[in-house]
Amino acid sequence: MSDLPARVRIHEEGPREGFQIESGVIATADKIRFIEALACTGVPQIDCVSYVSAKRVPGMADADDVARGIHKRPGVRYTGLWLNTRGLERALELPLDRVGAVRVTASETFCRRNTGMSIDQTFDEQRNWLRLYREHAIEVEWAYVMTAFGCNFEGEIPVNQVVRIIERLKGLEVEQAVRFKGIYLADTVGRGSPLSIERRIGALRERWPDLRIGLHLHDTRGTGMANAYAALRLGVDQFDSTCAGLGGCPFAGHQGASGNICTEDLVYMCHEMGIETGIDLRAMAECARMAEHIVGHPLPGKLMHTAF
Amino acid sequence: MSDLPARVRIHEEGPREGFQIESGVIATADKIRFIEALACTGVPQIDCVSYVSAKRVPGMADADDVARGIHKRPGVRYTGLWLNTRGLERALELPLDRVGAVRVTASETFCRRNTGMSIDQTFDEQRNWLRLYREHAIEVEWAYVMTAFGCNFEGEIPVNQVVRIIERLKGLEVEQAVRFKGIYLADTVGRGSPLSIERRIGALRERWPDLRIGLHLHDTRGTGMANAYAALRLGVDQFDSTCAGLGGCPFAGHQGASGNICTEDLVYMCHEMGIETGIDLRAMAECARMAEHIVGHPLPGKLMHTAF
Repeated sequence: MSDLPARVRIHEEGPREGFQIESGVIATADKIRFIEALACTGVPQIDCVSYVSAKRVPGMADADDVARGIHKRPGVRYTGLWLNTRGLERALELPLDRVGAVRVTASETFCRRNTGMSIDQTFDEQRNWLRLYREHAIEVEWAYVMTAFGCNFEGEIPVNQVVRIIERLKGLEVEQAVRFKGIYLADTVGRGSPLSIERRIGALRERWPDLRIGLHLHDTRGTGMANAYAALRLGVDQFDSTCAGLGGCPFAGHQGASGNICTEDLVYMCHEMGIETGIDLRAMAECARMAEHIVGHPLPGKLMHTAF
Repeated sequence: MSDLPARVRIHEEGPREGFQIESGVIATADKIRFIEALACTGVPQIDCVSYVSAKRVPGMADADDVARGIHKRPGVRYTGLWLNTRGLERALELPLDRVGAVRVTASETFCRRNTGMSIDQTFDEQRNWLRLYREHAIEVEWAYVMTAFGCNFEGEIPVNQVVRIIERLKGLEVEQAVRFKGIYLADTVGRGSPLSIERRIGALRERWPDLRIGLHLHDTRGTGMANAYAALRLGVDQFDSTCAGLGGCPFAGHQGASGNICTEDLVYMCHEMGIETGIDLRAMAECARMAEHIVGHPLPGKLMHTAF
């Protein structure tokens, strides 16, 4: 257990992941109430909305109202997700925290189906984002590699394909004179296993020994927490997760890209292993029960359903 | 990943774990149909019923009919669980496979509440079981330590308390001239973390280097698959799990001892890491969907809800 980090930073993605996938209508006030409760748990960052087409993602039709309605708590970052330049332009008009992310995809097929662009074209779009970040004094943080473990069209993405994408991101850093905090590997459709985690992290560490790595894990095939543990063992200290295991991927191409790993379950596992998260477990479990009440059906998180 | 086993043996506990906990009435014919489908997946052993009081566990009121109704497939073992001598006597009358197990509990409080006996008294009862096994030519296999990670009454059970229980089981081996296949650690209420897995296995390996260890894991707090992975890394090659994640513990003392780790999710994780199980993943996922249909509500297994 030697490389376990002493502390992990968890980004809460439940509001965005959850509200974009839920089929029923959720009241704007409930979304805001949930976000405000999450902000009281000690979690440092909450992804609140995505700036996407209301036609494509009806659950985000009220994203602007949610963004404007939140009473913010000092010390918490309230973010929103943009997946294209139009989304970024919307973010610039709204009062959430703007964190400069770069987003590319490892699977060509998934990239084209999801964004309508080739991987090459998305790199060009990232140049445009980086220009807008400069113009608006938005600090650049993480670069995200979506489908870094595979997708439902191409199956497993080979490790060297992931390495090549990151080489291109490293090139982009030099070309654009920016410095990413690190690389986030997203298991967008939850295909990963502990072995595929170890292979990717091993390959990246070998190539770039000081690279910080973050993980965005989905639990589509039940391996999410095992994957998180495999990464913790290798010293990974940055994770996305969703309260109550809310979420899924609305663009995954077919049914079944189920929720992210569950925040409170991840926090429980970390705390039981002596890893700090800064998150109040009971408060987070309370938020999970609130989420279940708001969406009106059982959610996959485990801990919230038990005494602990 | 050096100590990963090449092959694991999985005991399917879904029928017993599931049917004893489900609140609705499940038709005897459905139980038998499910067991017969499981027998076609390649799983080597299926725990079908528990010989318990119908008053205490209404879902097992038809256990005798289930036991008598199964059309058996060669090469598969169909077992039943007894928790007291009366249950064992019932098992002797019924046509399921009788596997000689010894069962003790690490938590004194859980033991008393669950069995009405002290730990000392349960050891005496095991002597009686071993006598009956001899009389009926039942081969002795595993010794099970329930609540080996903790319980809801006493919290975490210290590692040295687990070691002491196993010392007593080792003493029982000598005294009774039997040889257990190994020791099964049961996380009866799903309290374990990868760290508590490693600590227990480490302590047992240090004391008894050749001891075979099996794990019966519940996913009550979301750590089940991470715990399984932690054990796989240490070479553990024997697991209980339940198709679709059926189950729970009806005696756990309060709400929320949720299902076991899910067989098809565990099989997926093993196969993705190159570990053989002998189980046909698609057939097991089909059984999981059948289980969901039979119980009439969503079950926690993940893989069955996606394309894979």
